[in-house]
Amino acid sequence: MHAAEMKALIQLHDGYANTQTGPNIDDLSPFVALQDVPVPTPGDGQALIKVHLAAVNPSDIHFIKGEYGQPRVKGMPAGFEAVGQVVAGDTPLMGQRVSFFASASGAWAEYAMTDAARLIPCRPDLAETDAAGQLVNPLTAIAMFDLVKESGAESFVLNAAGSQLGKLLIVLGRDHGIAPIAVVRRAAQADMLRALGAADVIVTGEEDPVEAARAIFKASKPRILLDAVGDQVTADLFFAMPSHAVWVNYGKLATEAPRLTQLGQMIFQNKRIEGFWLTRWMQQVDPARIPAAFAEIQERFVTGKWTTDVAGIVPLSDAMTQLPQVLAKLDGKAFIDPRQ
Amino acid sequence: MHAAEMKALIQLHDGYANTQTGPNIDDLSPFVALQDVPVPTPGDGQALIKVHLAAVNPSDIHFIKGEYGQPRVKGMPAGFEAVGQVVAGDTPLMGQRVSFFASASGAWAEYAMTDAARLIPCRPDLAETDAAGQLVNPLTAIAMFDLVKESGAESFVLNAAGSQLGKLLIVLGRDHGIAPIAVVRRAAQADMLRALGAADVIVTGEEDPVEAARAIFKASKPRILLDAVGDQVTADLFFAMPSHAVWVNYGKLATEAPRLTQLGQMIFQNKRIEGFWLTRWMQQVDPARIPAAFAEIQERFVTGKWTTDVAGIVPLSDAMTQLPQVLAKLDGKAFIDPRQ
Repeated sequence: MHAAEMKALIQLHDGYANTQTGPNIDDLSPFVALQDVPVPTPGDGQALIKVHLAAVNPSDIHFIKGEYGQPRVKGMPAGFEAVGQVVAGDTPLMGQRVSFFASASGAWAEYAMTDAARLIPCRPDLAETDAAGQLVNPLTAIAMFDLVKESGAESFVLNAAGSQLGKLLIVLGRDHGIAPIAVVRRAAQADMLRALGAADVIVTGEEDPVEAARAIFKASKPRILLDAVGDQVTADLFFAMPSHAVWVNYGKLATEAPRLTQLGQMIFQNKRIEGFWLTRWMQQVDPARIPAAFAEIQERFVTGKWTTDVAGIVPLSDAMTQLPQVLAKLDGKAFIDPRQ
Repeated sequence: MHAAEMKALIQLHDGYANTQTGPNIDDLSPFVALQDVPVPTPGDGQALIKVHLAAVNPSDIHFIKGEYGQPRVKGMPAGFEAVGQVVAGDTPLMGQRVSFFASASGAWAEYAMTDAARLIPCRPDLAETDAAGQLVNPLTAIAMFDLVKESGAESFVLNAAGSQLGKLLIVLGRDHGIAPIAVVRRAAQADMLRALGAADVIVTGEEDPVEAARAIFKASKPRILLDAVGDQVTADLFFAMPSHAVWVNYGKLATEAPRLTQLGQMIFQNKRIEGFWLTRWMQQVDPARIPAAFAEIQERFVTGKWTTDVAGIVPLSDAMTQLPQVLAKLDGKAFIDPRQ
């Protein structure tokens, strides 16, 4: 039997904040608090998971700040994804190690709850840090790369290319022979991204990045721009891309509102702007695509084709003070360990 | 036999201007000149048409200014569409009255030339002013209204609603029971548009038009925004629309570059921005859709379901001086008559 009470990072607000401050955070205390709360009880079709390790993604920070596309629920634990062991609920996976998206009770807690049908069994040789974060970033990478493959182009463009997700996408591009054109802010990242498989690197901090991009785009004719930033440089790169380009926005690292300076390209060059949301993709995709994607994801991590860069693992009990420092590191992913 | 020489408004520039001044024009003389030029000789698959009446559309003005999606050709007559009589070329329509898009030699001339396969025979009871402009506006209205029908919504939004195209769309909405939400700049147009069939009218010159729109959108849940303006109010209206809204840009009356202030809606609300171009639509649509559309267009004009508001008809020989004044009229369409 599991305990009746648990520690968790509890949301302090309901709904949305109507701010746009981006995914940076210096201080968690306006948004969550470490509290003792009852362990949730799984209802029909739900499973309770003892959390081993929870991932911290930009979307988690957007969410607790009230800037994500889903409303906050005051009193509920935060945290979207984790790995853990199934300890209760009506599921044949009882006792097994699973990755999961915590849809019913958040993952920054000793126990989390979710739909039993959405549990992802983990291979025993999959590392905890890979398992904790195998959903939000890796599945998004696989799903968005399907768009790249469907575009039929020989290359694609991605920004925030030094992010965890960016690196997964670059490796996918390299492995499938579709040249990744990586957009980053800092020149220091360029060599690492080239070593990973980026065919070209555009550094937005340098002079005239859009002109540099134009020459690259002219040669390799990318059609998909995978955008986690949403700033003016992104818009300018989109307008520098060839006909039929699609700007796929999936995140908002920048707080500025980009201008559509060449709206006529939508008409005459058949360009398009749309968004990608993993939650919607999972609802709409052929259900058979999802287990196939997780088989590929785990194989990639286990064989070293993909790696998880760990910025730091903070104990749940110290997360309020330690998490912002780990998140401030420019490379790698932060985790919360509720067993410490 | 036809004459060897003809009068025409000849383009003075090649290619693009890299300006964005919109479709207004005070003076034609920087862009076209009335000249005597040889009558073009149709090649294989082409037809020569003696022009009865040429329409003047916003796209014509964009084009001669070098601000349209197709490059200008110095020395060629301007003018995209007209009605006239086939006088030469390899076509079974020889001698007949046809509407046409002047793809090979422009329509602001005594003679124009185009692909013989694209000629549109006119019913004898179709008025010349309806026939001269039955392609650019009416076919665009029919084609974009297909998007509205496919959206499955009970309403749709259109701006520049007092334009010729706007009025055609409002009537289509009324006739198909899909409520047109008309966006206009001037309150003076509201009553006329309601009489025509607009279910709601949003006047952008009034205080807080977006708040007014939000209440309307909440009730009738439109999914398609047909946009000929491309300004910030358009972007704000798009972001005020419900989930799954599609912003379809097909013209650029405004010169400002709108800001994407709510880019996250692309992700979480599945919104999309795209363009509509009649030329692309005609290449991609089921070929059977086109004659069916023209049968409907002519039927609508002949039976009075659609009407062409005539701002003025100027003789070709006086167009350089008279056309800007007629175009400056706020309501109705301008025509050029090369037979005067």
